[in-house]
This record gives sequence, C-alpha cells and structure tokens, in this order.
Amino acid sequence: MKLGVCYYPEHWPRSDWPEDARLMRAAGLTHVRIGEFAWSRLEPRPGAYDWAWLDTAIEVLSAAGLEVTLGTPTATPPKWLIDAYPDILPLDAHGNPRKFGSRRHYCFSSKTYRAETARIVEALARRYGAHPGVTMWQTDNEYGHHGSDESFSADAVAAFRVWLENRYTDIHALNEAWGTVFWSQEYNAFGEIDPPAATVTEANPSHRLDWRRFCSDQMCSYNQLQVDIIRRHSPGRPVTHNFIGDFYRLDHRDISRSLDIATWDSYPIGLLSESQAPRDLKARWLRAGDPDFAAFNHDVFRACAPRWAVMEQQPGPVNWATYNAAPAPGMVRVWTWEAFAHGADFVSYFRWRQAPFAQEQMHAGLLAPDRAPQPVLEEIRQVGREMERVAGMAQDRAEIAILIDYPSLWQHEIQPQGNRRGPLEPSRAAYAACRRLGRNVDIVFSDTKLDGYKVVIVPSVPVITQEMEAHLTSSGALVLATALTGSRTPEGRIPETLAPGRLRRAFDVRVEQLETLPDFVPVDVQVGEEVLRAERWRETITTGSEVLGRFADGKPAWVRNGRLYYAAFWPGESLMTELVGRLCDAAGLARRDVGPDLRLRRAGGIQFAFNYGPGRQDLCRIGAPRSADAYLIGSADLAPFDIAAWPCKAGTG
Amino acid sequence: MKLGVCYYPEHWPRSDWPEDARLMRAAGLTHVRIGEFAWSRLEPRPGAYDWAWLDTAIEVLSAAGLEVTLGTPTATPPKWLIDAYPDILPLDAHGNPRKFGSRRHYCFSSKTYRAETARIVEALARRYGAHPGVTMWQTDNEYGHHGSDESFSADAVAAFRVWLENRYTDIHALNEAWGTVFWSQEYNAFGEIDPPAATVTEANPSHRLDWRRFCSDQMCSYNQLQVDIIRRHSPGRPVTHNFIGDFYRLDHRDISRSLDIATWDSYPIGLLSESQAPRDLKARWLRAGDPDFAAFNHDVFRACAPRWAVMEQQPGPVNWATYNAAPAPGMVRVWTWEAFAHGADFVSYFRWRQAPFAQEQMHAGLLAPDRAPQPVLEEIRQVGREMERVAGMAQDRAEIAILIDYPSLWQHEIQPQGNRRGPLEPSRAAYAACRRLGRNVDIVFSDTKLDGYKVVIVPSVPVITQEMEAHLTSSGALVLATALTGSRTPEGRIPETLAPGRLRRAFDVRVEQLETLPDFVPVDVQVGEEVLRAERWRETITTGSEVLGRFADGKPAWVRNGRLYYAAFWPGESLMTELVGRLCDAAGLARRDVGPDLRLRRAGGIQFAFNYGPGRQDLCRIGAPRSADAYLIGSADLAPFDIAAWPCKAGTG
Amino acid sequence: MKLGVCYYPEHWPRSDWPEDARLMRAAGLTHVRIGEFAWSRLEPRPGAYDWAWLDTAIEVLSAAGLEVTLGTPTATPPKWLIDAYPDILPLDAHGNPRKFGSRRHYCFSSKTYRAETARIVEALARRYGAHPGVTMWQTDNEYGHHGSDESFSADAVAAFRVWLENRYTDIHALNEAWGTVFWSQEYNAFGEIDPPAATVTEANPSHRLDWRRFCSDQMCSYNQLQVDIIRRHSPGRPVTHNFIGDFYRLDHRDISRSLDIATWDSYPIGLLSESQAPRDLKARWLRAGDPDFAAFNHDVFRACAPRWAVMEQQPGPVNWATYNAAPAPGMVRVWTWEAFAHGADFVSYFRWRQAPFAQEQMHAGLLAPDRAPQPVLEEIRQVGREMERVAGMAQDRAEIAILIDYPSLWQHEIQPQGNRRGPLEPSRAAYAACRRLGRNVDIVFSDTKLDGYKVVIVPSVPVITQEMEAHLTSSGALVLATALTGSRTPEGRIPETLAPGRLRRAFDVRVEQLETLPDFVPVDVQVGEEVLRAERWRETITTGSEVLGRFADGKPAWVRNGRLYYAAFWPGESLMTELVGRLCDAAGLARRDVGPDLRLRRAGGIQFAFNYGPGRQDLCRIGAPRSADAYLIGSADLAPFDIAAWPCKAGTG
Repeated sequence: MKLGVCYYPEHWPRSDWPEDARLMRAAGLTHVRIGEFAWSRLEPRPGAYDWAWLDTAIEVLSAAGLEVTLGTPTATPPKWLIDAYPDILPLDAHGNPRKFGSRRHYCFSSKTYRAETARIVEALARRYGAHPGVTMWQTDNEYGHHGSDESFSADAVAAFRVWLENRYTDIHALNEAWGTVFWSQEYNAFGEIDPPAATVTEANPSHRLDWRRFCSDQMCSYNQLQVDIIRRHSPGRPVTHNFIGDFYRLDHRDISRSLDIATWDSYPIGLLSESQAPRDLKARWLRAGDPDFAAFNHDVFRACAPRWAVMEQQPGPVNWATYNAAPAPGMVRVWTWEAFAHGADFVSYFRWRQAPFAQEQMHAGLLAPDRAPQPVLEEIRQVGREMERVAGMAQDRAEIAILIDYPSLWQHEIQPQGNRRGPLEPSRAAYAACRRLGRNVDIVFSDTKLDGYKVVIVPSVPVITQEMEAHLTSSGALVLATALTGSRTPEGRIPETLAPGRLRRAFDVRVEQLETLPDFVPVDVQVGEEVLRAERWRETITTGSEVLGRFADGKPAWVRNGRLYYAAFWPGESLMTELVGRLCDAAGLARRDVGPDLRLRRAGGIQFAFNYGPGRQDLCRIGAPRSADAYLIGSADLAPFDIAAWPCKAGTG
Repeated sequence: MKLGVCYYPEHWPRSDWPEDARLMRAAGLTHVRIGEFAWSRLEPRPGAYDWAWLDTAIEVLSAAGLEVTLGTPTATPPKWLIDAYPDILPLDAHGNPRKFGSRRHYCFSSKTYRAETARIVEALARRYGAHPGVTMWQTDNEYGHHGSDESFSADAVAAFRVWLENRYTDIHALNEAWGTVFWSQEYNAFGEIDPPAATVTEANPSHRLDWRRFCSDQMCSYNQLQVDIIRRHSPGRPVTHNFIGDFYRLDHRDISRSLDIATWDSYPIGLLSESQAPRDLKARWLRAGDPDFAAFNHDVFRACAPRWAVMEQQPGPVNWATYNAAPAPGMVRVWTWEAFAHGADFVSYFRWRQAPFAQEQMHAGLLAPDRAPQPVLEEIRQVGREMERVAGMAQDRAEIAILIDYPSLWQHEIQPQGNRRGPLEPSRAAYAACRRLGRNVDIVFSDTKLDGYKVVIVPSVPVITQEMEAHLTSSGALVLATALTGSRTPEGRIPETLAPGRLRRAFDVRVEQLETLPDFVPVDVQVGEEVLRAERWRETITTGSEVLGRFADGKPAWVRNGRLYYAAFWPGESLMTELVGRLCDAAGLARRDVGPDLRLRRAGGIQFAFNYGPGRQDLCRIGAPRSADAYLIGSADLAPFDIAAWPCKAGTG
Repeated sequence: MKLGVCYYPEHWPRSDWPEDARLMRAAGLTHVRIGEFAWSRLEPRPGAYDWAWLDTAIEVLSAAGLEVTLGTPTATPPKWLIDAYPDILPLDAHGNPRKFGSRRHYCFSSKTYRAETARIVEALARRYGAHPGVTMWQTDNEYGHHGSDESFSADAVAAFRVWLENRYTDIHALNEAWGTVFWSQEYNAFGEIDPPAATVTEANPSHRLDWRRFCSDQMCSYNQLQVDIIRRHSPGRPVTHNFIGDFYRLDHRDISRSLDIATWDSYPIGLLSESQAPRDLKARWLRAGDPDFAAFNHDVFRACAPRWAVMEQQPGPVNWATYNAAPAPGMVRVWTWEAFAHGADFVSYFRWRQAPFAQEQMHAGLLAPDRAPQPVLEEIRQVGREMERVAGMAQDRAEIAILIDYPSLWQHEIQPQGNRRGPLEPSRAAYAACRRLGRNVDIVFSDTKLDGYKVVIVPSVPVITQEMEAHLTSSGALVLATALTGSRTPEGRIPETLAPGRLRRAFDVRVEQLETLPDFVPVDVQVGEEVLRAERWRETITTGSEVLGRFADGKPAWVRNGRLYYAAFWPGESLMTELVGRLCDAAGLARRDVGPDLRLRRAGGIQFAFNYGPGRQDLCRIGAPRSADAYLIGSADLAPFDIAAWPCKAGTG
C-alpha cells in the first residue's frame, strides 16, 4: 500500500519542481510517474536528445524521497517523426490516415515505428536504467485506447498474412476453419487475405475473430519489444503498463505475462457517464461511480499478474466524458481503499497539477492550475494516516470465481445476438450479483485451475477450450453457466455437437435453437411456484438433467446435472443475483443482500465496507460489530461516501 | 403447389448427399435450389472449372426424385477474380471500394464483370442447360441487397452518361427537364454529368430520380445478359430471380418481363425486427411477423410475372436481424399456406441444414448443424398432406386494387416530405387496411388496365403518367387517392397545372399548398358529426367537387367527384381502413373488421383464414361455417398460429 | 421601411417579366434582388459572357419602378469551371472533395477560385456598377451554409500556416499559446501544422479555436475581395451580404465592417423544425416559429452594421426542414412588422414565384408555380398600407444589453461542457428571458461601449478580453454573468488566475471547480426561503462577495459584488427570466411577464405587440390603452397571429 501521483515536470517551470516534490511528500505520496508523452522534449529534433531536464527532474524528485516510475514516450511520436515517416500513422478501415494532433497516432504493425520505438526506448533505458531514483518502468500509455488497437495499413495487412500463415500453415486449413466455402470466400494463398473491413455486408465472423486475435497479439509483441530493451538496461526494476478499464480489445491476461505489475487507470465517474446505464442509476451514482466498476477491474488485473496497482486514479472531474461531475467529498478516499482492499500495490492519482492548456485542461488535479491545493489532498492525507492501522493486509483467495475469456468477448462483439450493452455486460452482471450478495470474487481465465472454489460462474462464455472444460469439470465447485456458453469453437464456429460444445456432456444439455429477444419482451421461467424474469436469450434445449425451472411453454430452462447448473437464458443482473444466491446456499456460502450502495470486501483478516450511496448505512445489519472500539477505520454507522474496516476471521469471503 | 428447399451440397461431405436427398423427399419436398454462391468451387482458379462435384450433386438429387433449380454464382465472385480485376468492386459515394469478404461485391456497370458474368454463366448453362434434372434456373441472388443497387465506379459514371444521352438525346433537353438553371447547375455536355453524390447540400431531385432509374435499369440489363445466355443453352426451362421483400430500389415489374417466374425471399420475423413498427406490435407479432408483410409482397410479385413463388421461406430464427426470435410453432405452416392461398407456384425453405460456419451460422435450417431434424420439418410434412385436400385452387381477380409505381417510390425516397417510415409505407398502409377489412387485393402497376375493379386505391403516388390517368379515369371503379398523388411529373417536377397533375381535371382539385407535419401534430378532419384523425400531410386545395369532410379551419379535406375520391391528407393505417370501408360500402363490397391478428384470403372456391395472433379466433364471427365437416383444413375454432380452409362461392373476394 | 422580393428572371420566359414586375409593384414591393446563382447564364462557356438577358431584366424591372439589388453569382460556380479547376472544390476532413451538383461547392482559400471570383465580379460590376437601376449589391449568398465555412484543401492548409505565422510570428509563441508540450504536440516550424482534423482523439482546443478564427477570417477576406471590386466600379451603392440566422461559425460583427448593410435570411418555421426545442413547443409554435428566433437575429445584425434588413423572409412552407408547416394566416405580416419594429431597412420575401423544378421546388413563393397569387400576397399588401401609419419610426437604444462574442461561441463548440443544445443556447436563453419580461434588448459585442445601459447580461461568455473587462467594469450597469464567463483566454486556455479570469477581481470570485451535469440532474439554489432550479453547470467558488444564494451543500451559488452579479450555475431559460427580473427591479426597470406567446417591441415613440400564439391577448393586461382610437394598428383585443401598435413615451424600452 503506497500512494503516488502522475507528474509532468515538462509542463511547469523548473523552479516549481522542488516545491512540487516537497508538497507531494507532505501529502503522503511516495511514488511519482513521469515521462510518458514527453518525446518532443526528449528529442526535440531528429537524433538531438535533450536529457538535461529529465536528469534534473529525476534528481529533484529523488532528492525529496520520491520513487520514480519512468514512462516510455511512445504513445505520442512527435510531428517531425510523423512527417519523416508518414507510414507510422494508423489507417482506418477505408484507408484514411488517423492523423497527428492528439495521441496514439501510430500503427502497432508499422515496421518503421517499431524501429523508432526501439531507438527511443533504448536511449531512455540506457540513460536511466541504472539510475537509483528510477524504481519502475511503464511502457507507453493505454494501449488500444481511442480505437488504436487496429490499423489497416500496408504493414498491418502484411503482418496479418504472416500471422495467419503461422497459425494455419496451410491455406486449406484456414479455408476449413473459417468455412470460406460459404459465399465463395475461399482463398488460394495467404497473400490474398485482407483485413475484414469495408465489406459489402458483414465479414466472415471467423475472419473477424482472427483479426481481433492478431490485433491483440500485435499489441503484445509491441510491448514485448519495449520490455526486452528495458530489462536489458534496467534489470531488476519492475515493468508495468497502464491499461484502461472495461476494455476488451486487448487480452490483458496474455500481455501481462511480460509484465511484473499490471496497472490500470480508474475513472469511475467518467465511465459511468459514457456507459449505457439507465438514467436513474446515472443520477444515483453521479458522484460515486458504479459501485462495481472499479472493483471489477481491480479483480481483472489482480488476476493478470503477480502484482497489480492503480496507475491513474480519478481525483476530481475529468474533461472527456459527456458529463463530468465531481466526486462526492470522500469518494477519492473510498476508491483508494477499495483498491487497497483488493490488494493494490499502490494507488497513483492522475494528475498532480491541472494544466491550464491543451486537451485535458478541464481534467482536475490535486492542485488547481494556479497551484492551489484542492480539497481532495486532505482526503489523500487521511488515507495515508489510516494505512498504518491496516498494514500487512493479505489477499485471500475468494470462494466464488467468474470466468473471463478474451476470445469469447471478441465473439460477443462480432455476433452480439441482440446484446446491445456490449461484450462485457454478462461478466459485469455476474460480478455485480456477487458483490450485491456481499461476496469476494476472483476473476479466472481459461488457464486458471479452479480447485478450491465453491462456486464458479461462467457468464455466457462462448469459447470453451479443452483446458477450460477440464478445469470446470474437475474443480469440485458448483458451476453456473448461462446461455451461449460453449456455443463456439476457438475458430468461431458452432461446435460439431452444438452448444454448449465441450460442456455438452457435463451439463447433459443440447441447445437446439437460440432466440435473441428484444429487452421489451421478458422471458418467464417458472421455478416451483415462483416466476423468475429472464431476458434477451432463450435457448430451446433437450436435456437429461434435472429440470429446476421451465419456460412458459413447459420447455426446460434451468437445469442441474449434479454440481453443474445451466441457465438456458440470460438472467440479467437481478435474476443473476437470485441464482448466484441459490448456488451460495447450496455451497454453504453465507450471503446477504447488501443493497444497491453498500459494498463489502474482505482482505486478510480485515473486513471493509464501502458506502457508494447518499444514505447512511447501519453495518450491524450485515453483521458488523456495534462497538466503535471494534473498528480499525470508521464505525457501524457508515456515512455516505465513507468506509469502515474491522478485523474478521480470515478465509470467509 | 410444391415444396422445395435451398441446399448447398458444397458445404457438406459428398457422402451426406444421398441421405440428405432421401430425407428431403421423405419430408414432402420435390424441388431443390443449388449452386448460387458456388463460384469458388466451380472455378477454383482462373479458367480451371471443376464440374465433377456439381455433376454428382445433380445426379444424386435427381435420382432421389428432386427437381433441381440451378443458380448462377454471380453474387459472389471469388477472390482471385477480384484481385485480377479490382474494377469489379462497387465504389461508394466517396469513391471507396466496397471490398471482398462477404457478397454482392460487384458493380452492375463494370464492363469487366459483365464479361466475366457472361463467361461463367455461359459455361454453366452450356454444361447443364439440357440436363434433364435441371428444371429451372435462378440468376444471381437478391439483386440490390446491401445497397448493391448503386455504385459510383468509373464504369458506372460512363454508363450513366450514355444512359442520359439515350434518354434525352440533347443536353438542352436534360437541362430543361432537370431545371438546371436553378443554382447554375447547367451542363454543356453529357460528359460533364456525375452521379448525384457527395454534393455540398442535397442534389437535384430530377438528377437523383434519373440516377435511380439508371441503377434499376442496370440491374435489368445485367439480368437480361444472364437470361439470354441461359435461354440459348436451356430452352424451355423457366428462369427466375429471387427478389427481396419490401424493397423498392429495383423496378420489379420491369425486370420481371425477362423472367418466367418471379420469386422472392420471405423473412417475416427478421423484417419485423428491422422495421419501424412500434414496440407493442414488435412484441405482439414477435414470433409471427407482421400479418401483412408476406401477403403484400406475395401480391406484388404475383403482379410482376405470369407465375410467382417463394424461393426462400424463413424456417426458424435468422442471424441478421437485431433480434432473432423463433417462429411460433405452426407459423411456418401458416406462412406456407398464406403463400399458396396467394397462388404461389412453390414454397422453398431456406435452408436445408444450418451451417456451423461463416456469416449465416446462426441462420436456422430444417436440420440442425449436427444434422438432427428440427421440429419444423413436421409442420412441412403436414402442409404436404394438407395440399391434397385443396388441390386445383385458382386465383381470382380481386375486387380491390392498389396502385404501385416504382418511380413514385423513388420520388418518395428523394423527397420524403416528412415521411420518416419510408417510401413503401403508404402502399403498405393501404394494403393493411384492405386486409383488415377481410378483402383480397390485387397490386397493379402503371401499365395495368383497371377494368372490372370495384375499388382502386392510389396511395400517395406522385408520378401519374398519361397511361395511368387513362386507366384510372376509364376503369369504372371507385378511386381513392391520397395527398401527393399526381404531384410530380416523370421528371420529378411539379406539374404545370400543379398537383394532382394529370388527375386535376378528373378530381376537380387543385393543390395550392402542402404542409408536411410532424407525427405529434394530428390533422383533424370533420365529416358530418365525426372527427377523423389524419396525419403528416395536409394539402390546401381548391375544388369544385363535393366536399365530404373539412379541416378544422373549414377548408376542404375529403372530396368526391363522381366515383373519384380525394383525401387532401395522409390518413394513416387506421383512418385508411375507415375510408376504404366507406368505399367498399359505396361499391357494394362486403367488409368486416377481422381485427389485428386474423387474416383472410379467398382463392378459387376456397376461403382461408390465418391466425397470426396469440389468441383463439371464432371464425363464425366472420361468417364461416360452424360444422367441422364443412372444413378442408381446421375448424371454426381457430387456434393461435393456425389456419383453416373451407369451400366458398367463387368470385367474392 | 421598404418591401422587396427575390426574383429569378432566368427561371422564366422573358415574356413573363413585365407582368411579374407589374404585379410586384401592385403588391407594394419596391425592391427586387436578382442575379445571385446565375453564373451559368452570365457565362455559359469560359469567357463567353451573356449580358443580354440581364440587361433586359434590369431594364424591365427598373421601368416598372423597382430598385434592383444585384447579387454576385459566386455561390454557384458552373460545372465547366469546376471541371477546368477541380481545386476549387472544398475538401472534407478526410480529404474527400465536396462535389458539384448543389451550391457552395468552393473552398474560400482556393487561389484559383479567388482569381475566378475577381474575374466574374469585376465583369459584373464593370457592366452594372453605374447602372441607375442597380441600387444595391449583394456579395455571394449565405457564407458558411452547409458547412462550407471550412475546407481542408491544400490551399487551405497553406493559408492556415501563413495565417498562424502572421498571428504568432515565432513558432515558440504558438507552442506556448497552444500548450503543445502536452502530448508532445510541439512544432518546429509553421510548415508542420495541419488543420485539426482526423486526429485519433480530440485535437488541441487552442488549435481548433485558431482554426475557427482562420475559417471566419477567410470568409471575411474573400468578401473583402468582392466588396473592393464592387466599390471600385459602383461607388456610392451600398453593399450587403445575406447571412443565415442562428449561425455562429462566421464572426458577423467582423465581416460586417466591410458592408454598408447587414442582411439576413429569416426562416422561423424551418428553423424551429430543425431546432432542439421540445415537442410541445414545436407543436405550439408550429405555424408561427419561435417568438424570439427572428427578433434575436434582428438584434444581432442590427448590432453588426449601421443599417440592417431581412433579405429573405419565409412566405410559406419551405422545402428543406424535416417538417414544413405553412405560416399561420397573418404570420408573414407579423414577421414583417417584427422586423420593422427592430429597425429593418427593408423586408424582402423569398421568393417571387415558386419554381416547379430542382432542389427548392417545394419552397413556397408569393406566386404558385402556375403563377397564381398565393393568399400571402394580400398580407403583404396590408403591411404596405399600414406602413404609412407608422412612418418615421426610430430605433431607441435599449436599457438591457446582452454580450455576444464569436470566439466565445467557438469555445463553446470546441468544449461544450455537456451543453448539448449548442453554442448559442446561453445567448438565446438570455434573450428569451428579456423578451418574456417585455423588454427591448441590444446585442453588444466585445468592442461595444456599455455606457448608459441599466442591465448587461453576460450569458456564459468564456473569452473576456481586456476591452470587454474595461467596458463591463466601467459601464455603471448592473451586470449578470453566468457560469463559465471568463473561463478562457483568447487562446482557449484557462486563465492564470482561474475563471472568471479578467473579471475575477470585479466579481471577487474564484472558480475552484466546474461540474458539467446531465439535464436529468437539477441543481438547486436556495435564495432566502425559495429554492431556484438551475441546471447543467455547477461551479464551486470561493468569494468575498455578498452571497445571495447557496447550493444545497451550503456553498455559494449566487453572489453580488456591488453592481456585479455572478451565477455559479446555468439558470436555464426559466430561472434566467427570474434573475433578469430581479436585476430589472434593482435597476428600476419596469417588467411584466408577457407569457409565452405575446411579444413587445418599442421603437421610437411606438409600442408594438405581436401575438405568436393561437389564443387572443388582452393588451390592457400589459398596460396598453383600451380605446380603439389610441391604436395606429389593431386594438387592445389582439387576435392570434396579429399585431397592434400604439404611440408611447419615447425612451422607455
């Protein structure tokens, strides 16, 4: 548990730096990230490096006792470089360049840009790799943001063809995998294949799925290029990248294998504004953000790498959302503690001082543009003081796991089947259900062994590999899978045995037909005397399993084969909560409805409670101690936008 | 009345074919369409034809007693052909190619593609033209789908200029017709004229109308090219093309002159999902489709050619709509009978077996991807058994006709006048009104003589030619015309005598002014004591005719000149039903409100009733016999998604 | 006060002209605008001028006693010119040409087009400059319409670079002004800079602001080019340009310095249809237009130049809006009088006779396409008769002024801060508030001295220059400024002292933070016992001023420093009316709520009342005389869509 901040010394007079550093330390901050985006200052003209200012900046910060994370500046190649090599620019699906003038204006496949990247990273790592003040490296910034994950440049096309040849070896294998016999899409050579763009009607879904894989792989190999150079010159220093939340175009699990720490950038209020949440929730959580947004992403990145952290934490209104409310007083502290309760190595605020210029001038910092401290600094200081009381906190494995698989998310994007809320929605709904029940959750990936979990949720995960099948069937956990699970092969085809594919035998279910329904047509499921309300997907299944619930026409809807439960529908968040609750009961896991605003998290022997809502919460209602003495932080009477923490028995999540 | 299916032998192992053929026959199917989309298998490499597999497929199907319709594969030119001749690709309005990777990726004007088309069609027709197993030909597939009706390629521009020169001979005639003196749009030569695309603000409407004509004509001449070759090599075999429903960019009447049978592809549920119908209707008919969608298109294509049929009938959920519900059990049988009751030569289901790969993998077939029969097969078998009971059914001429004119639909597209529901909406509303009143309808075109009809509806048809004028004024029918009728010349100009143009004298109406109103502003029409609620269009007219109804300000709204009625407003579907009902009464035609879900159709001496709704219908209410013995199919107690048929007097539609 | 009409002799046979002219005069029209759009008739082929028809037309019109305004035809270069010089076409942000086929298809920066413009204007001005019948000139037509204000052509890029170099001299000054150190956007030379287009994510706001300035400046210098030529050949004749209403991309104040008369084109009903007004208002004012639309624009253009007028007045339904209702009977007269009451030199109707062809064939004229007079002609004749009764009317300076600043409007466009109703909305709301209170308003610009005003409203004007500061602080008026005022420097940066920037000391306010809120989240302000409902923007301020109102959390919201009032929120139209009313009271200005439909205007010693609503208005309610004799026009019982005028004391607005 450490606190940090993102700082841009190049934006301010050198004379400000020592005082900035002093103020940071005074606020309890110990870490500072600098340097990403600074290429035009590091190399103002081709080959003319200017290290002096950065030398000084690092020196000043180090001298004040701050550890420096140094970012490579590759997210923003300078104009002279673009003008020299226009082939660096990414091209859109119609071949139009995405131009200089903001950021991320490069194609991951550009050979020129990979060479230039190697050059600048080499120069930077060589100079600062052994610097004692530099204790961590960050590669680039937010891979894939602004649609930069894909480019249709000549280099990208060429690389895609090579990638396909590596994957399939033989063009016949590709034709077979993609089913190109359909609509005469057959290829005679890899060199004939283009990206799936600008087609007259929808492109082949297998083609699109491989394109997604390729684009993610290009980001991975591009990152690897940087990491290799850094490790060569800066051995022993951890390397990270700052990912974006609720993003699925990059396989975070895959790319994180090259990193020591996975970090991400948490903007709960901006994301709520841009989300498809209904108006009442956007109003309810206007200044708190969705109570599960940050926690979900914490758990995703916690699962990606041995260590994880928040590299950028929203500290005030941002500039880029349609509406930009300020966090409620107290929320920055709540978000920070939510991160620590999930095991964050550190929480670093973005940014130190609000810039009065350029694109992010309306993005709040810990200081105003005129350098006056913002009130949020006091919240951060408070966290610093509280950290001492809960030191040494460890992360427990949760009892419940939720399976996430990136190719499956891409499959949802490619064939949304009437899901208008995006590929992550099933995972997010499952996560929200567990949180609503007061439970810790682990995110698990296709290669995660599931032994020891009591409940595993497979929220409409289409691509079930042999490995996943093995883990699911051997885990001993109760498994809850929802419609579409196992409905695709890794190539994006319907499995030969139909859905749920590899899990067909385990569930003893065969999906005859899928209906995709508009959200104004509910899907009723009769369970005993109760009618449960599902939505969106209704599968017609044949099954030899025990039928726990039926659709209105009597067909099986909710079935159980031993410890494996299958929902032939999409429950939505509310019914998902109900179903997960039933599985908790069956697994002997305690559960309680904590309501829409209260959230719990157990870490080591400490129980945290977070209040995301505008009303007070009586924690005794959920079994917390009444006595104020029992609390490490706060009390049983939890104020709005406040937290409490108290010791609890370890191992009960 | 025959049943057929669409089959893709190239998608399956040869060993499956004989059993597939046997199963088809066992299901009562006698016709099978193959071959369209198979170019990459017929000619895997330039000039290297592979007929063997198709020889075998036709042999196997024929041997099982199936008649084969062979499709030309031109909707999907293979990649090697596109790479050899990129000028085949259609260009969008900005000149960007619409690329390979799906289907319909060719420009109708491409000289190269016309030559390649002639080559492959010639080769195919030469080989199979005299084959006894091939009893019908289909050209291409769904002309104009996915916006493929237009292309802005160099060949298209050149062809458009030639087309214009043929139409106008002299550039001054074109300038005069288009009114190019407006905004200095005058041309000095045909070679100066571009397609009406990418202009700064809207292009000249006459220019756009001729562009629509040209695009439709290019499809016609392209089709003629194929038909001529087929007829040369396969004399005596009927030739068809499978059109799309609710499509207006192609003049179906015009193109059908070259065909023996007009066929269309009927997807009632998918189309409802994509339509602008309100939510309550989308929910009401979720698994039945709009009760008038298929019937309307049946009647359109029935009017286009001496014979007509359904080439592709939706048999389950499709893949391409936003939401894809399954047909209610029974609906596929209902749709099939609705088609036969309209005189369909055959109904062919799309497709035999669901493919587990590529774009349409979620498109249901009669068999599941694992080859298991779907329940719908039993419905089809039932139709086969029922067909014997109603054999020999003939089509009667209806008493009511609705006028459709393609240039008028294009005029609606070009100047929608606040109609946000599309060019076909007036025609569809008039059709729904007649169906709601239990009446048969004939669709008529500009060249159809109207003698013998009792009522003719002219649903806001702007372009009234001399021929149409003659037919309307001499028919002896009561005529009901609504606002905008006759408001444009064939060149897309306001007639010299103002609207209703050529019909001004017949109606004794002069339209001084048109208001186009938002749908939240109703237009009240006072008729006697009643206030009728119209919408959208309100014309200010002067008239010497009898005024039957007036707007709120007292101006004439609903007038009659002898047997000609003019509505100076758009009635909407509900008021249209009321007005058509009044004309039925005046014409001595029986009418009854059959409600939203029940639909009737009389064919020869047989009366059919179709239930598109979720409730039972008592047919005695609409005068059907009570005794079960009186029925050929079903009974007076009509179940949801069921049909009934009983003998009736001939000639009362 | 004169009446005119727009006429296109080239659209009609020469034989029609004399009778047209006679009818115009008979209708009371004395002015006629011709010639704009006629290039293809003036120069049918390169260099081959045809003056004969125009000679005749001017002769015929003059002979009938009509004064001619001659328009330069540059809004519509002919096709032969475009084909000869394709670089005339504007390019969109992706470099696609915006093509020939409508109008405004030229780039303001095109060197070729400037030369061609000079050529045709020179030829025209040389021929008709001294013609006694030509008494006014109009340059081009509606600069900037259809997005023609910007083009991304090579000439535009080059001109932008020169423009930037002229503005900043040194590239370092530009880098500093734009804050290009952010995201490595630094430039080493002006030649590196592109327009802010097609960037990966948003472009630099200072870059965008200068691009807006440049685009406006290009229109100004292009206009100057024409004006200089005209003045050379036609000294003494006034020159005008016809602007569009509610348009902000062109700095009307700036461009008007080169004009003698600022004129604009008033289409109240079409604009309401396209506006973001709620449905109930669109229905309420369907046939009257927003009661403040025309008046607001009148006052804008009145402030731009010594004289102003309406060049195009909507006389019936238009063709270009989504819905096109007809003006209520009487409305054209009401609009005309509203213009005269604001001091219009003349009101000219668009157009004389409706054309039966081309893009605007559904645009009503004073004559129908068949030349029959429309009823509106009688309204115009009525105005002509009434004009004699109110002759000699002068314009008084108003007591209330509203500040408008074009760079501030551009700033709103670039950073809308959740304002989804457009840059002009704050100004329009302030204007509507004053009109609702029955007050005259003057629009003032950044260079207007404010002495003598009682109340000045600064409706969220971000860019406050030193000049504006001086005027505001020295005026003696009560000043009401709303959130965002002074929040940006002219370079589009946050001021060093934070918002309200230069006004920080005057208001004694410092804005710590801005929240941008969705419109479904109200912002309550407690003033004494009352709760006022604000919206959209909530600023957190520190202030030494008197706090008149507070937000729900007790923070200051509505403060006063002597005669300067600051609202740290956006009031919306309703609360704005309340606040302006309070300032009126404090300033001793009479105010009365005239309701939604009634509008007043005092001019010289005459008081006008206009009824935009469907109900009668009793004018005694607002203090008008009861006696019919007291009225110059109308009476105290004001019918719907009618006007009244009576003498009043001068100088009480």
